Amino acid sequence: MQAPFTTLSTFRDTLLKAPDADQVALAAAQDRNGQLTKPPGALGRLEDLAIWYASWRGTPRPTIDNPQVLIFAGNHGVCAQGVSAFPAEVTVQMVANFQHGGAAINQLSKAFGAKMDVYPLDLDTPTADFTEHPAMSEDECVSALQTGWNAVDPEADLLVTGEMGIGNTTAAAAVAAAVYGGDAADWAGRGTGVDDAGLQRKTDVVAKGLARHRVDDPLEALRCLGGRELAAMAGAIAAARHYRIPVLLDGFICCAAAGCLAKAADGALDHTVAGHLSAEGAHRRLLDAIGKEPLLSLGLRLGEGSGAALAIGVLKGAVACHSGMATFAEAGVSDG
Amino acid sequence: MQAPFTTLSTFRDTLLKAPDADQVALAAAQDRNGQLTKPPGALGRLEDLAIWYASWRGTPRPTIDNPQVLIFAGNHGVCAQGVSAFPAEVTVQMVANFQHGGAAINQLSKAFGAKMDVYPLDLDTPTADFTEHPAMSEDECVSALQTGWNAVDPEADLLVTGEMGIGNTTAAAAVAAAVYGGDAADWAGRGTGVDDAGLQRKTDVVAKGLARHRVDDPLEALRCLGGRELAAMAGAIAAARHYRIPVLLDGFICCAAAGCLAKAADGALDHTVAGHLSAEGAHRRLLDAIGKEPLLSLGLRLGEGSGAALAIGVLKGAVACHSGMATFAEAGVSDG
Repeated sequence: MQAPFTTLSTFRDTLLKAPDADQVALAAAQDRNGQLTKPPGALGRLEDLAIWYASWRGTPRPTIDNPQVLIFAGNHGVCAQGVSAFPAEVTVQMVANFQHGGAAINQLSKAFGAKMDVYPLDLDTPTADFTEHPAMSEDECVSALQTGWNAVDPEADLLVTGEMGIGNTTAAAAVAAAVYGGDAADWAGRGTGVDDAGLQRKTDVVAKGLARHRVDDPLEALRCLGGRELAAMAGAIAAARHYRIPVLLDGFICCAAAGCLAKAADGALDHTVAGHLSAEGAHRRLLDAIGKEPLLSLGLRLGEGSGAALAIGVLKGAVACHSGMATFAEAGVSDG
Repeated sequence: MQAPFTTLSTFRDTLLKAPDADQVALAAAQDRNGQLTKPPGALGRLEDLAIWYASWRGTPRPTIDNPQVLIFAGNHGVCAQGVSAFPAEVTVQMVANFQHGGAAINQLSKAFGAKMDVYPLDLDTPTADFTEHPAMSEDECVSALQTGWNAVDPEADLLVTGEMGIGNTTAAAAVAAAVYGGDAADWAGRGTGVDDAGLQRKTDVVAKGLARHRVDDPLEALRCLGGRELAAMAGAIAAARHYRIPVLLDGFICCAAAGCLAKAADGALDHTVAGHLSAEGAHRRLLDAIGKEPLLSLGLRLGEGSGAALAIGVLKGAVACHSGMATFAEAGVSDG
């Protein structure tokens, strides 16, 4: 389906009328969970995960057969301020690497049976440097949101959104600060690995962006301080909600994009779970802000959707147990 | 290969002459890791995992094609003391559930492509109640160690050992206390879900066992306080070392068995990684004692190898990235 919005305002309307989880499937999945051959609660968070997944898929005994990984790539005018340890050319080089199957996310997608698609977003035309101008016009931002929305396969049963964009931890930090408050220093981090001087530069750049735009609307924050890949991730996460496709959120940049949705519409991330806690310093703060507890915490800070893709395995395990296990009655096991 | 030991003393000798990781493969894997298309360290713990795995498999670019999950089941005389929320018959009922494919570990083994084998160990003859007698004679303990050793497929490239045995958190707590010190209350936990009175009973039973046997040798602790499934797991973990098969350790009971090996021979667990942190209270203490940081922490407390099986996905992801990613040179990506 083509994206049902043409402006930031109608995108917000789309968020506000998004469908909710299926309460009948939720109750039936909870009931099933209580009958499975294990002590109550012994599968810990796997039980909650499976029930949550069932509620969004609208069936008490779901399977995960068709996960989709979407990678969006964008370039950032703010790179001119020296905010990354890598040159901006790396964005297009890494897109080629994704397309040729050589990146981490290719291996993880394959390992967990996910279809992976890559969307380079006007890489030849970086966003404007947000210390001077809004990163995107409304048309540019809406176009990226639409690309994200349209990229989602309605037949997918799980979504991971990843990104590539040299400079985008700086954009994400600025967006997160605008949406959730706090100082630039609370949100700027080392990204791909800047040194102390680089971190100070990033912090100054974020502060400058915040001072210039003073946005109090989350979608305006996304437009003025974000980037195309952030907007595309937001559009994809919104589309997933429309199709009741559960989403595993990736690291700091993905969560900054997701945070714009959460702030724009209460409960807009109910169909999402945090795949992992990134090593990017402010990710914990951002997860707290959006109210998500990560599934994994293994020190990843790569982006590309890698942490969330790794969490596909955990979710598949949870759903496999829930839908495949015998009940006490079926197995003839005493239930204590 | 048949187990190369016939006594606890010759089992210890086997541990002491176990092979080490391949240092050449280790160095080559480290070198490869540094060339992959990602910022240095950006895959966090996945990088260490892949290098560790490569070093044990003796190749800088390994794959995981043939994981094995072994489930050992035993019954415990100490159940007579009322230490479990479930009756002892559940052990044999759950073995049937494993054999018919209905348990959590069946679903997880299938989800992660592992072959699963179940070994019921003399379920009709529980170990002796350790508050009165040694749980096993030396012959019984060695026989269980041998069963575990012989169960390992030399062609496997990853091993998970799980267990089933009503009452075995009590046995594991007693073993852990004997091997690593501390009070009974430090090690007794809620297992399948005993109430406060049940926990007090377990603690008293563990204290009684420790007072009766006063063992200062870890293999004697395994024999006097453990159980057949604990000994079988220890035997399997030792065999895996012999074949240089990496092992993912499961929860409290598996780690209690593994702890006996670590105390009996320095470095005996170098080929193992902790798959998860269980919700069983003393698992963190035991992981600290054996010097392992868990990969996952999702509140599981089921046993059966379930937490470790879930971690197969993480390890597969790590190895897939390491062995499948392009290098900077191959991909034509600038390395910063």
